[in-house]
Amino acid sequence: MRSWQSSVNRLIPTPLLLIDVVNMNTTAFIQMLRQCVGEAHVLTDGDLSSYEQDWRKRTRGKALAVVRPGSTQEVANVVKACVQAGVSIVPQGGNTGLVVGSIPDDSGKQVLLSLQRMHAVRAIDTDNLTLTVEAGCILQNVQQAAEQAGFLFPLSLGSEGSCTIGGNLSTNAGGTQVVRYGNARELCLGLEVVTAQGDIWNGLSGLRKDNTGYDLRNLMIGSEGTLGIITAATVKLFPMPAAKLTAWAAVPSVEHAVQLLGLAHQHLGAGLTGFEMMGQFALSLVDKHYPQLRTPLWRDTPYCVLLENSDAESENHARERFEHVLEKALEMGCVTDAVVAENLSQARNLWHIRESITLAQAEEGLNIKHDISLPVSAIPQFVEETNALLAQHIDGVRLVNFGHLGDGNLHYNVQAPEGGDNATFLREQEDRVNALVYDSVKKFGGSISAEHGVGSLKVDTLPDYKDPAALALMRSIKQAVDPHNILNPGRVIRLH
Amino acid sequence: MRSWQSSVNRLIPTPLLLIDVVNMNTTAFIQMLRQCVGEAHVLTDGDLSSYEQDWRKRTRGKALAVVRPGSTQEVANVVKACVQAGVSIVPQGGNTGLVVGSIPDDSGKQVLLSLQRMHAVRAIDTDNLTLTVEAGCILQNVQQAAEQAGFLFPLSLGSEGSCTIGGNLSTNAGGTQVVRYGNARELCLGLEVVTAQGDIWNGLSGLRKDNTGYDLRNLMIGSEGTLGIITAATVKLFPMPAAKLTAWAAVPSVEHAVQLLGLAHQHLGAGLTGFEMMGQFALSLVDKHYPQLRTPLWRDTPYCVLLENSDAESENHARERFEHVLEKALEMGCVTDAVVAENLSQARNLWHIRESITLAQAEEGLNIKHDISLPVSAIPQFVEETNALLAQHIDGVRLVNFGHLGDGNLHYNVQAPEGGDNATFLREQEDRVNALVYDSVKKFGGSISAEHGVGSLKVDTLPDYKDPAALALMRSIKQAVDPHNILNPGRVIRLH
Repeated sequence: MRSWQSSVNRLIPTPLLLIDVVNMNTTAFIQMLRQCVGEAHVLTDGDLSSYEQDWRKRTRGKALAVVRPGSTQEVANVVKACVQAGVSIVPQGGNTGLVVGSIPDDSGKQVLLSLQRMHAVRAIDTDNLTLTVEAGCILQNVQQAAEQAGFLFPLSLGSEGSCTIGGNLSTNAGGTQVVRYGNARELCLGLEVVTAQGDIWNGLSGLRKDNTGYDLRNLMIGSEGTLGIITAATVKLFPMPAAKLTAWAAVPSVEHAVQLLGLAHQHLGAGLTGFEMMGQFALSLVDKHYPQLRTPLWRDTPYCVLLENSDAESENHARERFEHVLEKALEMGCVTDAVVAENLSQARNLWHIRESITLAQAEEGLNIKHDISLPVSAIPQFVEETNALLAQHIDGVRLVNFGHLGDGNLHYNVQAPEGGDNATFLREQEDRVNALVYDSVKKFGGSISAEHGVGSLKVDTLPDYKDPAALALMRSIKQAVDPHNILNPGRVIRLH
Repeated sequence: MRSWQSSVNRLIPTPLLLIDVVNMNTTAFIQMLRQCVGEAHVLTDGDLSSYEQDWRKRTRGKALAVVRPGSTQEVANVVKACVQAGVSIVPQGGNTGLVVGSIPDDSGKQVLLSLQRMHAVRAIDTDNLTLTVEAGCILQNVQQAAEQAGFLFPLSLGSEGSCTIGGNLSTNAGGTQVVRYGNARELCLGLEVVTAQGDIWNGLSGLRKDNTGYDLRNLMIGSEGTLGIITAATVKLFPMPAAKLTAWAAVPSVEHAVQLLGLAHQHLGAGLTGFEMMGQFALSLVDKHYPQLRTPLWRDTPYCVLLENSDAESENHARERFEHVLEKALEMGCVTDAVVAENLSQARNLWHIRESITLAQAEEGLNIKHDISLPVSAIPQFVEETNALLAQHIDGVRLVNFGHLGDGNLHYNVQAPEGGDNATFLREQEDRVNALVYDSVKKFGGSISAEHGVGSLKVDTLPDYKDPAALALMRSIKQAVDPHNILNPGRVIRLH
């Protein structure tokens, strides 16, 4: 076996000296990893379930070792060691992903590389409106670091107390503020990445314009650790809004929700920072399982919409603008009733209702989840046709339809008929329901993964729905950038 | 020679049957091109200077033929013919680029592929806020199509009457509205691209969220035609602002301009759609060559700033917010004097002054141009140090310093000393001045090409200033995606 310090040919595939780590040289390899990151940070025994079990508890893998580097150079050294040994690496942040992309497979031959120890905020530059942070920093801590400096870092999602910014970027996370601020991708200006060769690319730029070559930043973002390991990022800060108001409106149909979205864009401009649509059945589950939340307006309307208006001026101004939009919407008939939160606590409660849909579904029993996106204009017809299609195939099927309508992103989930056994329903219907929903998504020009990614959950479904020329390009890029298939193999795109 | 219809191995390098097009088979090859696009659209004779001469008249190339396909399929057929013949292709839009990236080399062996005939607006989707347009559509026509539908397409730059949206995307164009709306990249949701194999990737998505694999869209954007040929795009529309106001402020220093930018961000939020800084010497040239423009405030201040505020509500509200910011700025001393345009014609005149700097420089005589970007926070010190450095090396040097301060983008141009011969100055000083400026840019973490790209002008300079791991990744991607080096070879990144 060659020493891991020896130079690795950059980007040119060379035959590897593969070692059979399980039988022969495991001890020597583990010893190498210990040299890279220190004895205490290579875990092989004890309860490793937080690293090996996926967030939704769908799958449990088995790692050869969990390695927890404390610096970018240590990450690079670990990668070089793995390249030499022919051992593949699964990078992991907070392990909150929903597509089984950040746990090892069950071979016991992969290294789980956790970025959790790299959680420093390296720099805040308020004149440049940027913050530089290490990959393992928990999203909520990034938000707080921004807030303490008087600024907003707008990425916000359910798991923000556990997920890491590195994971957010690797999966191009979405969340609730995308309608104004974009996905994780749009919030990032620069990256530091360890390549599949163990080189360090220092692309930690705080530049808003840089046309010196290919967009490697965006190639790495959303590649789910298959093209490089993100170790740090420079992200955008925004001025903190002077006021943020939340409203809740009953709308008579999906078409009317789309109409309301147009009105809100027109009259609030960039003030529109949230636009969530929720179907009646989804809200009935919240009301059933969390009656104390007092979900408003849902009983007499098929859909409700939550709107958020962030204002650079004042709360009075925000309220006046909101009332202006809602009055117009009432006049036009695209809203039948509405409330505006009077204070922060009411606003939080409205968001809390929206965010409780996921838990309320779980209380009701497992269902078949879809994270899809469509052109906003196609959503009314998509919902109508797909609802009818599912009802036709499954008697009494129940649809938990909600999502970020402002971004065309629906969580279009399919629940077993009332009184049915959820586990049986899932086992018997999941493939068929997925095919029905995804075929319909394809017909309307949509995506089968809006914000959750591909991971291993959708890697074998993707080829049926993605343009073949795009798949060929993806494959050739993966082969070129990671010629030994060391980084998170079998996720996003298969090579064979 | 194999027929061009025969299948091409996708993405796997195969030995090509190279024909020596100049000596042996030119006629046959030209005949093939004529079969692809029709006789009238293969130009080999007459005045081809508009295709072969670069915008700044730095270089003149010689094409084997100018080919003008009328459809995506025709582009694909031309690429397949060129792959078979081993002939490389230079894609071209409006040919307004500033880095010699869209004209053929002087070998007479390259095909110049003009997208000008593909200029249709394919679709406008106002509910989805998107517009789908072919690559050859002139930017101004894209803006007008949006406007006619009641919406804004915010990309705006000097050459908008001639440049095409395909060229804008291939070079990730910037312009004057980036501080609010981002570069061309941020305005694009989907692309249609012909690959280096002559396959068509239909990625014309109107989706705001799509996490089904690698970000091929952004990889193609800014790749200057070296990874694929953009044939159409789906771009974002925005609600038309209710009012747009322009102000002009005298600031005592670059530091104060940065302070004013922070204030404007804080109080105008996303209303801030323009923030341009202009040095006194730059404005003196405008006043000298275009006195009729009556440039305001420049005589008694080292810098002026142009601010634009776009408001979703009303002109009164926009004015009130602007006055609020400017009063605060006057109080704090970061502005010494300011005017707000009273009407559209005054606003246009202020922008016209800003845009006349380029022409005024030309009137004064050729100078050494730099299109650089820096973290906004680094600009004051960069300007101070670099000005001093240049003054130390070149007696009486004059600096035309202006740019999009809101994006950290300076056009930091170096003019010969008064009375000096401009041509001699350029010939004798250009390399030295470039090295001084770029070294300083690198020291402050900046980019040597903010918005113009690399082309052939900077392709051999880039390796001195770009991270080596990034260059290695770029090279491996180019090799993988375009294994025969058919697409715009020698631009952006050299393979050897």
